[in-house]
Amino acid sequence: MRNFSFANPVKIIFGKDTIKDIANEIPIGAKVLMIYGGGSIKKNGVYEQVINALTPFEWFEFPKIEPNPHYETCMKAVALIKEKKVDFVLAVGGGSVIDATKFIVAAVCFEDGDPWKIISEGMSIEQAMPFGTILTLPATGSEMNNGAVITRAETEDKRAFFSPYTYPKFSILDPTTTITLPSRQVGNGVVDTFVHIAEQYLAYRENNTLLQDNFAEAILKTLIVEGPKALNIPTDYGVRANLMWASTWALNGWVGCGIIQDWATHRIGHEVTAFFGLDHAQTLAIILPGVLTVLKEQKAKRIQLLGKEVFGLSATSDDILIDMTIQAVEDFFEKMGVKTHLSDYNLGDEAIEKVCERLKERDWKLGECQNVDYKMAKRILELRK
Amino acid sequence: MRNFSFANPVKIIFGKDTIKDIANEIPIGAKVLMIYGGGSIKKNGVYEQVINALTPFEWFEFPKIEPNPHYETCMKAVALIKEKKVDFVLAVGGGSVIDATKFIVAAVCFEDGDPWKIISEGMSIEQAMPFGTILTLPATGSEMNNGAVITRAETEDKRAFFSPYTYPKFSILDPTTTITLPSRQVGNGVVDTFVHIAEQYLAYRENNTLLQDNFAEAILKTLIVEGPKALNIPTDYGVRANLMWASTWALNGWVGCGIIQDWATHRIGHEVTAFFGLDHAQTLAIILPGVLTVLKEQKAKRIQLLGKEVFGLSATSDDILIDMTIQAVEDFFEKMGVKTHLSDYNLGDEAIEKVCERLKERDWKLGECQNVDYKMAKRILELRK
Repeated sequence: MRNFSFANPVKIIFGKDTIKDIANEIPIGAKVLMIYGGGSIKKNGVYEQVINALTPFEWFEFPKIEPNPHYETCMKAVALIKEKKVDFVLAVGGGSVIDATKFIVAAVCFEDGDPWKIISEGMSIEQAMPFGTILTLPATGSEMNNGAVITRAETEDKRAFFSPYTYPKFSILDPTTTITLPSRQVGNGVVDTFVHIAEQYLAYRENNTLLQDNFAEAILKTLIVEGPKALNIPTDYGVRANLMWASTWALNGWVGCGIIQDWATHRIGHEVTAFFGLDHAQTLAIILPGVLTVLKEQKAKRIQLLGKEVFGLSATSDDILIDMTIQAVEDFFEKMGVKTHLSDYNLGDEAIEKVCERLKERDWKLGECQNVDYKMAKRILELRK
Repeated sequence: MRNFSFANPVKIIFGKDTIKDIANEIPIGAKVLMIYGGGSIKKNGVYEQVINALTPFEWFEFPKIEPNPHYETCMKAVALIKEKKVDFVLAVGGGSVIDATKFIVAAVCFEDGDPWKIISEGMSIEQAMPFGTILTLPATGSEMNNGAVITRAETEDKRAFFSPYTYPKFSILDPTTTITLPSRQVGNGVVDTFVHIAEQYLAYRENNTLLQDNFAEAILKTLIVEGPKALNIPTDYGVRANLMWASTWALNGWVGCGIIQDWATHRIGHEVTAFFGLDHAQTLAIILPGVLTVLKEQKAKRIQLLGKEVFGLSATSDDILIDMTIQAVEDFFEKMGVKTHLSDYNLGDEAIEKVCERLKERDWKLGECQNVDYKMAKRILELRK
């Protein structure tokens, strides 16, 4: 185990009928801006619950945050916050809305030119506005971490930032809000959660990380049991509760304490989304099996552990076990309704060229051993046609 | 899963040579009181490291916190803090030192008469002094929670309290500090951690808590693999790191989110320690197998899960599996060098009488179904002679 530090101050309020509790968490007298997405919250009753809970406050709303939220959209919310002198922000939605909100609360306080520099130049911020979240789509873990991924539409650039100032003050997780999700989003959420763990669990190890391995397996095993049930019995509250809480813990910092991490799948996937608009989870479902195949030597012990401990596989040789495990990962994604090949999304050689050209320009060396360059990415993507 | 809220603000700094980092965590210019126990930190180099790190501060020390820390001792530290106008407290030691420190920082600020009322009457506190910890004995989880157990020597009373104000600001976990622990303390620490999980994992369930079950099993499986190694190869850093981090997560609130909990073993155990001075973990090792046996019907599914998922057992009938599992728990405690019968500590019928008389006086109904009264406690203890 490597040295690390860990702190996560987010207050979670979890369970049925908890949206009303925001009234106890938002400072009395605050002017609130509610940020949300495409309007599904108006169909499933969440919007109604939120505005009822906001009765004691003066509040405004900023709808239409897009999936893979745009810098350009965020800057409009920044202007509204300044105009209305808002002092608390409430994100209502999934990872896109929450990520956008993190950038917005940071950008409002940024005084050193264009806030895009927070992302493009990794400029650290010194403060951010306080915000809370109401999660309606379990997937990204953004509700209990300090990271966000923002896309600049103009330059087809999708990039992450982190700051100690962008933890939510609170997050409301009511599993009943997820029961009406379309199955595409349920599948995406489970795949995203799975790959968050994979980026941590399947990275090559220098030494003993048994506890973190067991933690990661706890989440993966939950996904494998509960994920398909969420598709088949959409109204099962217990299943939704397990999946929602699992997605939060898959990326709140805890599984990754003291270990090396990979993240090549995410980094390549972000480029595929930025260019071709695929759902984030779709890119992960395509790329992860390719990463595991190309790096099967480096990750051999990790893949075998996944096969044995999570999928319950055994085989007559290590090589066979590895191949069976990679196939099991792919099969699980397909079972969750997320297609795993570029051709499923009408992408081919041209798309591969475009993504690899971008990786070459950036001269990225990805993965836990920093050996995934554009050439290796090409081998990965070629396998996933 | 039941509704819950979860927040844990403690900053953890984990790894080799991290004691020096306290200098970055204690507020500049603070007057510091260092609280510690019997002096083992003077033999293993920890004391030296701490006073070197405290060079930038004015500091005082309060040694000789006893195991099962006494209210009477704590009040002497309270007087010293007031006399010296201390404004930050640093606990260096295991659960006893940290628990004592929690009571001390609360008692200093308590203005409503005798601070014992915080415990005896469950009076809530409105503030506490800030404090940090350097953990040297992984066991109680006190370094990342807000609870403490204090003993009033005068009345042989051992009781717990909790407050949102008694979370450490930071905790330093350097596994190298645990390498010189006597094997008795290593065994005690592993048993204590195991039983913390058991109190949460083995409680009867109303519904689906798969994720929490998997989390709990992650820790138990780590203990079973690494615990015996810590006794056999005391210098293995990786083993010590896993055990230290496991003990923190066994009782920082996370495994228990959304589930009913038991705690009968701890409550009865506290009485045994208060009267007869056994180590805390010794009482747990005696009592848990008895609780499981007497409540085997109520806990049937949970005990079977433990047997299958943690000990890898299988049997021709549920009843046999349950008995095998309870035996496996007892065997594991014995393997860790912690004896599991009252007679191993020269206690017999008289001790059972005394403990049950106390439970009767208090009219306690313990456990997740509140059905463990003094009569059932007697059956439990009779089984453990």
